[in-house]
Amino acid sequence: MRVMGIDPGLRACGWGVITVDGPRLRHVANGTCRPTGSDMGTRLCALHVMLTEILATHRPDAAAVEETFVNSGGQSALKLGQARGVAVLVPAQAGLTVGEYAPNTVKKAVVGVGHADKAQVAHMVKMQLPGCDPDSADAADALAIALCHAFHLQSSGRLAAAMRA
Amino acid sequence: MRVMGIDPGLRACGWGVITVDGPRLRHVANGTCRPTGSDMGTRLCALHVMLTEILATHRPDAAAVEETFVNSGGQSALKLGQARGVAVLVPAQAGLTVGEYAPNTVKKAVVGVGHADKAQVAHMVKMQLPGCDPDSADAADALAIALCHAFHLQSSGRLAAAMRA
Repeated sequence: MRVMGIDPGLRACGWGVITVDGPRLRHVANGTCRPTGSDMGTRLCALHVMLTEILATHRPDAAAVEETFVNSGGQSALKLGQARGVAVLVPAQAGLTVGEYAPNTVKKAVVGVGHADKAQVAHMVKMQLPGCDPDSADAADALAIALCHAFHLQSSGRLAAAMRA
Repeated sequence: MRVMGIDPGLRACGWGVITVDGPRLRHVANGTCRPTGSDMGTRLCALHVMLTEILATHRPDAAAVEETFVNSGGQSALKLGQARGVAVLVPAQAGLTVGEYAPNTVKKAVVGVGHADKAQVAHMVKMQLPGCDPDSADAADALAIALCHAFHLQSSGRLAAAMRA
C-alpha cells in the first residue's frame, strides 16, 4: 500500500510517498512543488497540475494533508488556505479519502513528542525511512505526514480495509 | 463579453454571469453551489465539479472572485481559504485571468458607498440588471462582483483587450 503526505504551501508545497507492507515502511519518492505565476489563479493552477502529475506517477492508495495552524492573522491564513484547498482537492479528485492531522499529532507520531522541531522531524523521518534524502524541510514534513497516516491506518486496523478498497 | 463573479464559500458559493456590450449590462444567469460531503476533500471536489460545469455552460470571457476578509480567527479563514482556492482555480484552469476585489471595492462600485449592507447590494444588483432574481444573498454578491469587474474593465479600457484575447 502506498501512502502520500502533503505539506501544503503556495511557495513551497512538500510531498512524499511511502509504501507500507505490514510493519515495514519504505521510502518511494519525495519532492517540493514551487508553483510560479504573477497572480493567484496561475499559481493555484500550476500547483494543481504538479500535484495531479505526482499522483498519476506514484498512484498512492491513501493520502493525508497537514492541518496547518496559522497565528499570523486572517489574511495569511486565507492565502495558505487556498493552497491547502488544492492540496486536499487533488487526491480527492483521484478518489482518495484525505486524512487530516494537526502538526502536533504528526510530530508525536514520528518523533514521540508534540513539540519537536523541524530538524528532529527530518532526522526521525530519515531514521524510519532508510535511504531517503528529503528534497526540502517541506518534503521532510510531507514524509512525516505520510508516516503518521500509515501508523494511524496500521493501529486502527484500517490498513487492510484501505487496501481492499 | 461575458463576465462571471464568484462569492466563495464552502457551504454556499454564489455565482453570477452577466454580459457587457459597450455600456449595456445584461443578466445571464446566477445560482448557489451547495457542496455536500462528510469530509473536506469530498466537498472541495463537489465544488470543483459544480463550478467547472457552470463555466462550461456559460463560457465567461472574464472572472472575478471576492477577496474575502475574515475576522474570526485563523481556523475559519483557513477553511474559507480552501473554498476560495477552488473558486480561483476553476476559472484559471479555463484560461481566464481571475480578478480579485475587496468587499468594500465591490460595494463602492455597485452601490456607491463602501459600507453598504447586503440588502442594498441586492437592491442595486436588481436595478442594474433588470429582470434578474438572485437565487440567494451569495448569488446577489456574486453578481455584484461581476458588475464590479465589468466596470473596472470598462473604465480601464481593458474590455476591448480582454475581448480580443
